Amino acid sequence: MTTISKDNDVVTLVNVFTVEPENQQKLIGMLLEATEETMKYLPGFVSANIHQSLDGVRVANYAQWRRREDFEAMLKNPDATAHMKPIMEIAQFDAHLYEVIETMSVSKSQE
Amino acid sequence: MTTISKDNDVVTLVNVFTVEPENQQKLIGMLLEATEETMKYLPGFVSANIHQSLDGVRVANYAQWRRREDFEAMLKNPDATAHMKPIMEIAQFDAHLYEVIETMSVSKSQE
Repeated sequence: MTTISKDNDVVTLVNVFTVEPENQQKLIGMLLEATEETMKYLPGFVSANIHQSLDGVRVANYAQWRRREDFEAMLKNPDATAHMKPIMEIAQFDAHLYEVIETMSVSKSQE
Repeated sequence: MTTISKDNDVVTLVNVFTVEPENQQKLIGMLLEATEETMKYLPGFVSANIHQSLDGVRVANYAQWRRREDFEAMLKNPDATAHMKPIMEIAQFDAHLYEVIETMSVSKSQE
């Protein structure tokens, strides 16, 4: 389980991949493997959260890293780039870093 | 605080807005207001989580609804569309629905 909170000391990566429908499941498998084998052992990794789009042509990774520098170091890590290369052959992606500004939930509104 | 888990009974909206840098804070305020005044009272609303991009030109809403039908009903709700109209005048958006496939975190990897 992952938590979203403005009190979390993380930087958030929202990465939306676009694929041909026949590659959606393959991409999910590749992202799970990359995370299990490599990403989660890198300094500053906090979480990866893999989402499958209902329209069949997207996969979103909502990921958390301790610091921006940790994420940027991952991008230069040979083990990480070895995983990313085949992923980029079947998917386009749009990745950006964020900070959490506010979370609003039903339970909070009922307090 | 919001939780991401494949055991949550929700559908997830990932909505990435793009704005001119001078409108990023304005958009965040409009999204917070829309959620506080309207969205959180609609049937099936679970959470909205507003994120500000470090590059200054994006705002992401990671939102959870109970069912796809609840989200689609929101899109037709007059109070909701009244909030969305001025937002669409200053921002472009790319919104899609997802289900959570897997969450992987440091603590899980250490179990």
